[in-house]
Amino acid sequence: MPPTPSATAARRAALRGLLATAELDALLVTDLVNVRYLTGFTGSQAALLVHADGDERSRFSTDGRYLTQSAGEVPGLERVIDRSSATALAALAPGAGVRRMGFESDLVSVDAHAALAAAAAGVALERAPGLVQLLRLVKDDAEVAALLAAAAAADAALAEVLAEGGLVAGRSERDVALDLEIRMRRHGADGPSFDTIVAAGAHSAVPHHRPTDAVLQRGDLVKVDFGALVDGYHSDMTRTVVLGRAADWQRELYDLVATSQRAGCAALAPGTDVAAVDAAARSVIVDAGRGDEFLHGLGHGVGLEIHEAPALGKTGVGTLAAGMAVTVEPGVYLAGRGGVRIEDTLVVRDGDPDLLTRHPKELIEV
Amino acid sequence: MPPTPSATAARRAALRGLLATAELDALLVTDLVNVRYLTGFTGSQAALLVHADGDERSRFSTDGRYLTQSAGEVPGLERVIDRSSATALAALAPGAGVRRMGFESDLVSVDAHAALAAAAAGVALERAPGLVQLLRLVKDDAEVAALLAAAAAADAALAEVLAEGGLVAGRSERDVALDLEIRMRRHGADGPSFDTIVAAGAHSAVPHHRPTDAVLQRGDLVKVDFGALVDGYHSDMTRTVVLGRAADWQRELYDLVATSQRAGCAALAPGTDVAAVDAAARSVIVDAGRGDEFLHGLGHGVGLEIHEAPALGKTGVGTLAAGMAVTVEPGVYLAGRGGVRIEDTLVVRDGDPDLLTRHPKELIEV
Repeated sequence: MPPTPSATAARRAALRGLLATAELDALLVTDLVNVRYLTGFTGSQAALLVHADGDERSRFSTDGRYLTQSAGEVPGLERVIDRSSATALAALAPGAGVRRMGFESDLVSVDAHAALAAAAAGVALERAPGLVQLLRLVKDDAEVAALLAAAAAADAALAEVLAEGGLVAGRSERDVALDLEIRMRRHGADGPSFDTIVAAGAHSAVPHHRPTDAVLQRGDLVKVDFGALVDGYHSDMTRTVVLGRAADWQRELYDLVATSQRAGCAALAPGTDVAAVDAAARSVIVDAGRGDEFLHGLGHGVGLEIHEAPALGKTGVGTLAAGMAVTVEPGVYLAGRGGVRIEDTLVVRDGDPDLLTRHPKELIEV
Repeated sequence: MPPTPSATAARRAALRGLLATAELDALLVTDLVNVRYLTGFTGSQAALLVHADGDERSRFSTDGRYLTQSAGEVPGLERVIDRSSATALAALAPGAGVRRMGFESDLVSVDAHAALAAAAAGVALERAPGLVQLLRLVKDDAEVAALLAAAAAADAALAEVLAEGGLVAGRSERDVALDLEIRMRRHGADGPSFDTIVAAGAHSAVPHHRPTDAVLQRGDLVKVDFGALVDGYHSDMTRTVVLGRAADWQRELYDLVATSQRAGCAALAPGTDVAAVDAAARSVIVDAGRGDEFLHGLGHGVGLEIHEAPALGKTGVGTLAAGMAVTVEPGVYLAGRGGVRIEDTLVVRDGDPDLLTRHPKELIEV
């Protein structure tokens, strides 16, 4: 379900609280994901001027291609139809009593900023990075429901592929990836949430391997990292299976990563430093002498983007809060031999986190 | 096929010609599509410092996730492994004798620019928008081959869906979209090149409608706008069919758009103003009294992005050159009743343009 008009109105009201703190008369929102969060609009060209005085003075803009669609998706805001939505709204700012207008300095290009400044003559353009992203950090119930629906589509797809013998020696990585994607669609996904990774044998040691025509072989570790997109929300899950009976080194590697992953999940709690979550999982792998083979951060936020704040990494800054949705995905990669990654998406809660990706995590031997 | 190392080296050499003109000692390339064009790298975090002196002094950067992948994809450049590739390379500039360093001011955010300036202490950062995009305007043979492969996958998928009764009353828009996407994958596509549009009945009057669970009805116009992705290159094609025998108004609308589309394709020639191409197609629709129902520009460039330069629109600036790949896609949309759009992707040539999307364009009554 897309957000209701009252849900997006509440988000705009929350944003006005941040505008007051920053002493801004308005924020010009030009990032399409942020526009979607604040309005429900799903098209490819738009901007939003959030006026501190309220929605009556705020304006939404898109172009003629989205005339009908935007009328349905954004019923509560006056629309400006223009092919250059950002500059069109900037040009309205002086007449709307805006003296200090924030812009998304983390996302607006140097050249686009120059165009906005020219359009909003007499208005002071102020750097205001990450304000909407700050709101997006904590997911409301409708957002968690969308994330869970996406995760459920991925869970169901993987369960079917395994049950129906779709992950076996003789199939290609590409075949398995396509199989997963088709089944996610049949379970309600709008599409994959990112390029599906199916990596067999030595390929599993490449963290972000893309599926090839390589054929799965008996004895391979096969790493499957994939997710579904539902109403703009992304799920993210990795499972690693062995084709046949696991060799001792494969089982050892799997158990190590699984122990690390459990430690990371257990560390998720409001108030915990993101770097401490990474450390909880990473120390398991470092203690086993494999720290150099864990090539990436522990996890990342997920929501309207597949990678969003907070980043859970060694050098991450910030603390968790209830309602944040994050992945926990340690991996150990033995170049030329194979790798194991296990990943879940969870929502931080006051007690135990909510697990969204629910496919079992025992070592699967198929 | 990904570009060969010598192909990407030739592109970097061509870029050095533009650096000389702009009196830059180097260009810091941070846009991932431009990095891919210049190196063949397909990962999600990277940057490239193209030094005017040559590849020996140039540097490629990505992070540990792509250690193995980048060794294979970017064999000809010294690598810097860093999680913040752009600032890591900026920091190398002073020591590499760079005094004037261009940056992609059309794509680098205001905040990122500030970080680059801090990292490259003593180096003058100069706005250098669109240099790589300028090279990308004219496709080389390998690029045209990839575009044609993508178009062929889409052609084959649509032909199969029609031949096997997949586009009929009783199916949902979502079913038809999924069917097309699965078949494109089976014909070698890495995925769809954008969100597939299947729009039936009144939905066909929404230019960028997203497929719903709405069921196709006898008598509907059904607009199908879709494409395939092959080696990073995007195809783009729209066909409109009628379920059953076309009503007079449907046939009239179809013939009008088809006439307009032929006029647009016929206008494609080196040296022609892009606005003149739009006018050639648009005037047909305006003369029929339907100018207000043609809600968008005539077309756009396609390549490593689904929408890239040149834009073929009323207010477009610039002229065509041989080797440019563009869409020609007039549409007329009767709100509440239905719409017709017909779109091809073509490569501008000295004689007639090359048609890449080859599925027939006669009105299909199924």
